[in-house]
Amino acid sequence: MPDYYKKSIDLHKKLRGKIEISNKTKVESKEDLAVVYSPGVAQPCLAIQENPELAYDYTIKGNTVAIVSDGSAVLGLGNIGPKAAIPVMEGKAMLFKKFGGVDAFPICLDTQNPQEIIDTVKRISPVFGGVNLEDISAPRCFEIEAALQDIGIPVFHDDQHGTAIVTLAGILNSCKVLDKKFDELKVVVNGAGSAGVAISKLLRCISLDPSQCLSVREIIICDSKGIIHKNRTNLNSVKEELLTFSNPNNVEGYLQDAIKDADVFIGVSKGNILSAEDVKTMNINPVIFALANPEPEIAPEEAYKGGAAIVATGRSDYPNQVNNVLVFPGIFRGALDGRAKKITPIMKLAAAYALADCVENPTRERIIPSSFDEGIANKVSSAVANSCSVISEHNHNRI
Amino acid sequence: MPDYYKKSIDLHKKLRGKIEISNKTKVESKEDLAVVYSPGVAQPCLAIQENPELAYDYTIKGNTVAIVSDGSAVLGLGNIGPKAAIPVMEGKAMLFKKFGGVDAFPICLDTQNPQEIIDTVKRISPVFGGVNLEDISAPRCFEIEAALQDIGIPVFHDDQHGTAIVTLAGILNSCKVLDKKFDELKVVVNGAGSAGVAISKLLRCISLDPSQCLSVREIIICDSKGIIHKNRTNLNSVKEELLTFSNPNNVEGYLQDAIKDADVFIGVSKGNILSAEDVKTMNINPVIFALANPEPEIAPEEAYKGGAAIVATGRSDYPNQVNNVLVFPGIFRGALDGRAKKITPIMKLAAAYALADCVENPTRERIIPSSFDEGIANKVSSAVANSCSVISEHNHNRI
Repeated sequence: MPDYYKKSIDLHKKLRGKIEISNKTKVESKEDLAVVYSPGVAQPCLAIQENPELAYDYTIKGNTVAIVSDGSAVLGLGNIGPKAAIPVMEGKAMLFKKFGGVDAFPICLDTQNPQEIIDTVKRISPVFGGVNLEDISAPRCFEIEAALQDIGIPVFHDDQHGTAIVTLAGILNSCKVLDKKFDELKVVVNGAGSAGVAISKLLRCISLDPSQCLSVREIIICDSKGIIHKNRTNLNSVKEELLTFSNPNNVEGYLQDAIKDADVFIGVSKGNILSAEDVKTMNINPVIFALANPEPEIAPEEAYKGGAAIVATGRSDYPNQVNNVLVFPGIFRGALDGRAKKITPIMKLAAAYALADCVENPTRERIIPSSFDEGIANKVSSAVANSCSVISEHNHNRI
Repeated sequence: MPDYYKKSIDLHKKLRGKIEISNKTKVESKEDLAVVYSPGVAQPCLAIQENPELAYDYTIKGNTVAIVSDGSAVLGLGNIGPKAAIPVMEGKAMLFKKFGGVDAFPICLDTQNPQEIIDTVKRISPVFGGVNLEDISAPRCFEIEAALQDIGIPVFHDDQHGTAIVTLAGILNSCKVLDKKFDELKVVVNGAGSAGVAISKLLRCISLDPSQCLSVREIIICDSKGIIHKNRTNLNSVKEELLTFSNPNNVEGYLQDAIKDADVFIGVSKGNILSAEDVKTMNINPVIFALANPEPEIAPEEAYKGGAAIVATGRSDYPNQVNNVLVFPGIFRGALDGRAKKITPIMKLAAAYALADCVENPTRERIIPSSFDEGIANKVSSAVANSCSVISEHNHNRI
């Protein structure tokens, strides 16, 4: 058991909860009580009753996000249920606070029924300014997120879009480093779960100008059965939808067939399914995002043996770590600051561009900033907050 | 507008939320990240998956309470809805922390349908060690609380039982001061909402020895239509149940008929419905609990004119304030410490006795301690925690 597993369980035993509720002002006298609570509190209550938007100004709503999980797809642990998921959601809440100054509270649900999850999130929404859906398995996550887009506060499934945004930022910087053009890339995405679907969709149209569209040249997506193509009979509706923009030549076969001449491989699947020999069949200067954890789809050493120009993983012990913490604190900070009603495609793109720009001079070993680099959440949140207003004008709904 | 209304709205504008989430340990390095979050966090997750009870030891569950409201009966403001209720629930969370060291989080629900409230509370329960139902109107509050008694964590409607426990403590000390016997008292309860029903039930049987029962001699309960008696045709099921133990002589009429010869009047109704003349018709040394806010059922000055020996109100500017903050922090602290699965009648009685004992030498102007007296929550919580184990032996279900 590596050192941090032991350290982690010791810390959890000691702390008995990694976060707590703190009072922002004192309650030391009856006078204090009359101001923070009864009877004085009636005044802000009545003001909010008259104008519910004032909840953002007078209460925690303006800075508070629910981290909602049903424990069905936690880290690499799978369906461990809502109680076992709490330590992860608490950790996430810590990162929200540390990096984004956002107050986030874990809501772990004792149901895995999509409609019940949807109903529950709607009902608890009044006190929250946003909802971070977390570790909910595919394809349920798509249905749940889609059904919650019009509840009046942003609902964002981080496993999908957080990963997709960091990946896009990495690809943008890879193009700069390798002098490749985004719209000439052939990309293979291996894995059609939450992250794979969101990444594929985000690569379709990355222009911040909603009247234009800049897309990669070709995407092929594989799942555990091989390439997703039109003659497959076992596709769910989410995968059917992927075919509306992927695999234009209807290539059949497996990952090894898809990857020939590809510029970018993005693995969001499982460890050790790609070999150096496979990488050799890719286009010149191939880029490898091997994001499976803890074992990447291909070890970076192997990828370089096969000729990889750039390798990113999900691990902190290699360069170019794709880590959602680079995005979610800033995207929610920006959405709260911009008082967004939803997270739009333009906001996601703004986050990806801002994140890419956080690396001043990208190199092969630094296409993605490090989690503890100064000011990342600030840059992402500013870009996101600014893009909130753009959206209402354009109603940009392609991604 | 009194000073504290103005001060309160200014404070709410300035703070933008009276509580916040704080991290209990630092996240300053990748090493920290690996311990509080991925990958180290997998270890406590797996431990909880194997033994879900460990959620109490490794997560916030062991110290965290949901304050759940639908905003249907907030303070004296009525049905102002879930967003307008947030300032009250935040204030309550502050008091939980200040007095009980309990982390409480406001959950304001966008539904007033009892079954939807029940379902929602069940579903969000995994992360909480208890649920404080708050400001939910009667009779819905009874149905909701009853349906949630077996979800594995304590569910306690403070407007009912908090008020009832403080009132009982005040009556116990009034008996000491006036040398009256509890089981000889005739009590009139005016108001058959959440507090009135809970008070009436709690006065029935106040022995901590479950094989015995010490009850007041007679209770008569009035609602807005007058005395609740067997010939009324407009009673809901909750009021029907009250008749199983109240009004044994089936007195008909109004409050003024009920109150003749009564030892104790408890008003949980509305302002100015009792006169000095009415008090004069009561037994010698009558005790008046005039708990309506902000206008009591009778002003203390008037009550004394009528011969009242002791007067308690809900207001902080008179002696003997019946304030739920004397109870809820301690009762949840004790329930969490005792890892209670529910709040049982014995735990409520233990809280009332402990609270009464907080006043060392009760006098007519001090039958109830003051909110800021030292050590109240500690004494209440110890008594409650100790009574958790008693219960499992006795299955005491009378109240």
